[in-house]
Amino acid sequence: MPEPLILVTNDDGFYAAGIYALQQALADIGETVVVAPEAEKSAVGHAITISNPIRISELERENGFSGYAVAGTPADCVKLGIKVIVDRTPDLVVSGINRGSNVGMSVLYSGTVSAATEAVILGVPAIAISLDAWVRPDYSYAAKVARQFVRRALEKGIARGVALNINVPKTPNGEAAGFRLTRQGTSNYEERFDQRIDPRQNVYYWMDGELVSNESDPSVDDVALREGYVSVTPLHYNLTSEESFAELNSWEDFQDDAP
Amino acid sequence: MPEPLILVTNDDGFYAAGIYALQQALADIGETVVVAPEAEKSAVGHAITISNPIRISELERENGFSGYAVAGTPADCVKLGIKVIVDRTPDLVVSGINRGSNVGMSVLYSGTVSAATEAVILGVPAIAISLDAWVRPDYSYAAKVARQFVRRALEKGIARGVALNINVPKTPNGEAAGFRLTRQGTSNYEERFDQRIDPRQNVYYWMDGELVSNESDPSVDDVALREGYVSVTPLHYNLTSEESFAELNSWEDFQDDAP
Repeated sequence: MPEPLILVTNDDGFYAAGIYALQQALADIGETVVVAPEAEKSAVGHAITISNPIRISELERENGFSGYAVAGTPADCVKLGIKVIVDRTPDLVVSGINRGSNVGMSVLYSGTVSAATEAVILGVPAIAISLDAWVRPDYSYAAKVARQFVRRALEKGIARGVALNINVPKTPNGEAAGFRLTRQGTSNYEERFDQRIDPRQNVYYWMDGELVSNESDPSVDDVALREGYVSVTPLHYNLTSEESFAELNSWEDFQDDAP
Repeated sequence: MPEPLILVTNDDGFYAAGIYALQQALADIGETVVVAPEAEKSAVGHAITISNPIRISELERENGFSGYAVAGTPADCVKLGIKVIVDRTPDLVVSGINRGSNVGMSVLYSGTVSAATEAVILGVPAIAISLDAWVRPDYSYAAKVARQFVRRALEKGIARGVALNINVPKTPNGEAAGFRLTRQGTSNYEERFDQRIDPRQNVYYWMDGELVSNESDPSVDDVALREGYVSVTPLHYNLTSEESFAELNSWEDFQDDAP
């Protein structure tokens, strides 16, 4: 049996520290191929590149970290990785380690998570992993967590259509209190738009914001992080709101003929 | 009571035909303010602009179509529209009319849908509307559908946290067989990457694809469209896969201490 093939991607770019820590932690579990954006692509959500041509460069970093930098988004990387670059279907796609957490509403904006979702859409199990640290992040513990879950996922499998969204807390001693299975919460960035004037007297805005959480349930992603736990949320790609059917069914529109 | 304030956006850009048809159809229902990307932003998903400054231009088209063109994504437009541009909270955000359907997996890639989801995240009810036509689309019937659902949504309200994703079929006589409440299906573009060589002998790729559906349930979005119905899917923004909890709970990782 060939060793497992693991496609490694991210949204911070091929030369980020987090993806290097991730690949190094997985190198002896299977064959790793890195396919990552050539430039940082944070907050691109599930964007794909259809109006521009996409270029791929084969690149090498140190210690066996080699692969492909793509002039595109994380979702592009996964599509190209699976359909063009590797010659057998990967056993797993792992995306990260992201600088900064991806919990609550950030899940929708996250390139890291969308890479994992894209893999799952293409039928390949996937894990996204993010570290809740922004200033001089130390990825060593998060890399150990990634390693543990990658081994478990290869051994047990992940249900078809499901990606694991793993977030690692920043704690004083660098280790978590444990692992917690969680649900996507509603924490969100409360945006401020910082209005400025450029040297030509034109107005422009920077989007900025502060994370706000109203959650307290320990089984919610951002609460688990806050309490020092590694948060593991199973995500799927179906956005249907089943709870809404009863109410909407009462609208006359669904009883009437066309307008 | 002031007339309802309707924020109109899209992902095909301020000067697209679909958003003009939409605004014209809604003009006598309420006060409309258009806040749309200055350039086409299809397939950007839920991208937001955090690494670049954002500019806004106040613009006018004919017949009372006026508003703001934003150098950003559809989600940026909704954030800026609600937080910077309009001075009272809109009663509704309407996104479209998109050229091309947004059903199945396209929901994840769609800028049109992500604008509606963004509104809902910010607490404003929202409708996304798309027409399943690409070549010389005629938006007149879809505009009537939008008008009907906007009136209904203003009258009845939409449940908090839910956006309606409306897709209008292309039919021989231009009208639909009726309205159908649907679920997001699994139809998807089967991508091909078209490899080419540029004049400098560098390889590049175009992403291209063909829509593939394995669905037959009439309550699935793409099936409803195919059968000539207007498809109306309630969407939320929580991606948690509740079905996965039992299986994942059996993983030792959630019983053990940290690694």
